[in-house]
Parts: sequence; structure tokens; C-alpha cells
Amino acid sequence: MPSTHQSLAVLDVEGVLTPEVWIAVAERTGIDFLRRTTRDEPDYDVLMKGRIEALDAAGVRMTTIMEVVQGLAPLDGALGFLRELQSRVPVVLLSDTFEQFGRPLMAQLGWPLLLCHTLVVEDDRLADYRLRLPDQKAKAVDAFRSLNYRVVAVGDSYNDMTMLAAADAGVLFRAPANVRSEYPQYPACTAYDELLDLLTGKP
Amino acid sequence: MPSTHQSLAVLDVEGVLTPEVWIAVAERTGIDFLRRTTRDEPDYDVLMKGRIEALDAAGVRMTTIMEVVQGLAPLDGALGFLRELQSRVPVVLLSDTFEQFGRPLMAQLGWPLLLCHTLVVEDDRLADYRLRLPDQKAKAVDAFRSLNYRVVAVGDSYNDMTMLAAADAGVLFRAPANVRSEYPQYPACTAYDELLDLLTGKP
Repeated sequence: MPSTHQSLAVLDVEGVLTPEVWIAVAERTGIDFLRRTTRDEPDYDVLMKGRIEALDAAGVRMTTIMEVVQGLAPLDGALGFLRELQSRVPVVLLSDTFEQFGRPLMAQLGWPLLLCHTLVVEDDRLADYRLRLPDQKAKAVDAFRSLNYRVVAVGDSYNDMTMLAAADAGVLFRAPANVRSEYPQYPACTAYDELLDLLTGKP
Repeated sequence: MPSTHQSLAVLDVEGVLTPEVWIAVAERTGIDFLRRTTRDEPDYDVLMKGRIEALDAAGVRMTTIMEVVQGLAPLDGALGFLRELQSRVPVVLLSDTFEQFGRPLMAQLGWPLLLCHTLVVEDDRLADYRLRLPDQKAKAVDAFRSLNYRVVAVGDSYNDMTMLAAADAGVLFRAPANVRSEYPQYPACTAYDELLDLLTGKP
């Protein structure tokens, strides 16, 4: 007898469907500090405040940052993968990015649902950021499970692990070796067709 | 000072973005019973069991029903409205339809997130249905509010009213006169450009 449970897939965005925004801003502006991630600075607030200070010190305006973001494209094959997945199960993107950064990329992905945070912009200056909710990825998974969905989650890095733990099933996509070896309970893959099979079974 | 709250819009589907599926099936099959709605039979389970019996009695197979659904198109202007709204706020479609009926229409709308129910199909016969969750529209609104979104909801009929009541703000779209007069607390409109303004303010 088939399960009566309806499934829903949640995906991390940067590294899974799109490039890393801060890396792209670092390359464009030449500010090496912006290459730092939560792996270098585990305190996200310290990291973001540092990013804002570095941008201020270099006189980089929001217009410039948004030009970088608008120049980004989804990863090769990401759009086709997403379309195929959406035709099989409802899909939600969960990212600790910001609405301002997300919009140009979501436009290219056909406006899937993206739940994320927001930036505070004042006079073309990136002034601050607002986390909508701490640990929002795991809490979103909890919410969809409370709505009686069986949730399968895809992530690539440490900040996805509470999301994978909250889900009914988790998959690592293009995760670095240390993440794969620390979390051997999750199947891992690097190609979108494998990911589709892991998420929904062979069609 | 601008609100730090991020907004999210939830929309009913049939009557707001697409035609009514059961009405279309009634027209194609000539089974007048399928024109009955929850206004004629408030007990949804009795209504659905009656629909299944009527289809069985007329020997209508799932293939025929799906041909009808696949022949439907979104309402005039719905796709443009949805695209514009998605470029401003995250959008979720909440419907008491079924995944099987939703898919051909979501394909035409670019695969927005649709939360709904599912049908049980056996040997090309519509055998039963599974409600994912009772009162799922209002519960989805509660869930998104618990994720710290300010939720604005759009509906057109009685079965949307718990969803509108749960939301931070509600709007009636193309609602019949009796719904509008019973729920005067909600602004009402009939054109997509007015609806955009009501949901997100003038751009």
C-alpha cells in the first residue's frame, strides 16, 4: 500500500542552485575579507558586521553589490533540475541569504518560493541586516512537517545540518569531504540527475 | 522607520488564478451533480464521496478527468499578475484541490509552490481522496506567521475565511456579493492590478 503522506523538498540555494554571492562580491571588489565564511568565523553576527565594515572601508555602495548579484547566473543545469523536481513534488528554497540578493537569481529560476532574511539599506549603503528568524531552515522544515508533509532536505555545508536533521530524509549535494565524512548517515551526490533520483526515486 | 517584518502572500487558486476544476469536469461529462459545491453540501466528505459515486455511475475514468484538467488554462492575466507579485514578495498557493489536478495548471503558472491534498487513483479509477490536513489553509498561514512572516491572504469564498482570519491582512478577489457583505472587514476587488496594489502597495 502506498504511503498516504505527501512529500515536499527543501533545498539550500548557494552551492546547490547558484554560486556563492559573497565570493562573487569579493572577486569584483578585491576585498579578500569577503571570502570569509562561517567556517572561518562561526559567529554569524560577527561575520556580517565585519563584511559591512569592510564594504564601508572600501566605499563599496549597494548599487555595486547589486550589479555583482545581477551578473550571477544559476549553476549549469540548475534550472532544468529545479523544473523537473517541481513537476514531481512541491519545492521550497531555504537560504540564509537576503531578499535583495535572492531576487535577481529567483527571477532566473522562475520565482520559486525562497524563504530567507533581509538587508537594511540606507542611502545606497548596506547599513545592517535582519535575520527573520534564528535557525530558520530547521524551523521551516518543522513547520512543513507540522502541515503533514514528509520533508526531504538538500544541503551542502555545516549550516544546513540542523535542517537535514529536522527533515524526514536528508541528502548532501556537492558537499566538501569533511562534511561528507562527518555526516555519513546522509547519501551524497554531485550530479543533478542523481539528486533527482535520491529525492523522488526513479520516475 | 520601516517595519522589519518580511511579508509573504498566500493565494487561493480556483477563482483567483484558475477556473473551477469540478465545473469543467461537469461540463465535459454532462454530470450536473458535479456542479455542486460546499455551498450546496457543507460536509466536504459527503460532497467528495458523492462526486466519486457520480463519476463511477457514469463510468468516467481518471484519464478523462485529467484530459479536462489538462485542457484548462489559467484565468486571463493570472500569469502576469503572479509573476509581478512574486517579484515583490514570496508567494504560496493554498488550495483544497489535489496534487493531480494542480500539476497541469502549476506547469502553466511556472511551478509556484502549491500546498493541497491528494487523490487515490486505482486502475484509472478515482477511488478516494486524502485530505493532507483539515483546515490546511489557515494552518499554513499560522505556520508562516510562526516563521516570522507578515502574511497577507487572498480568497474568494467561504472556505477561505478561516485563512483570511488567520492572516495579518485579508483581501477578497472576485468574491460573490453575499461573501462581500458578510465580510465587510476585508477590502474587495476584481482586477489584478487593484489586487497587486492592495497586497503590496503602489510600487
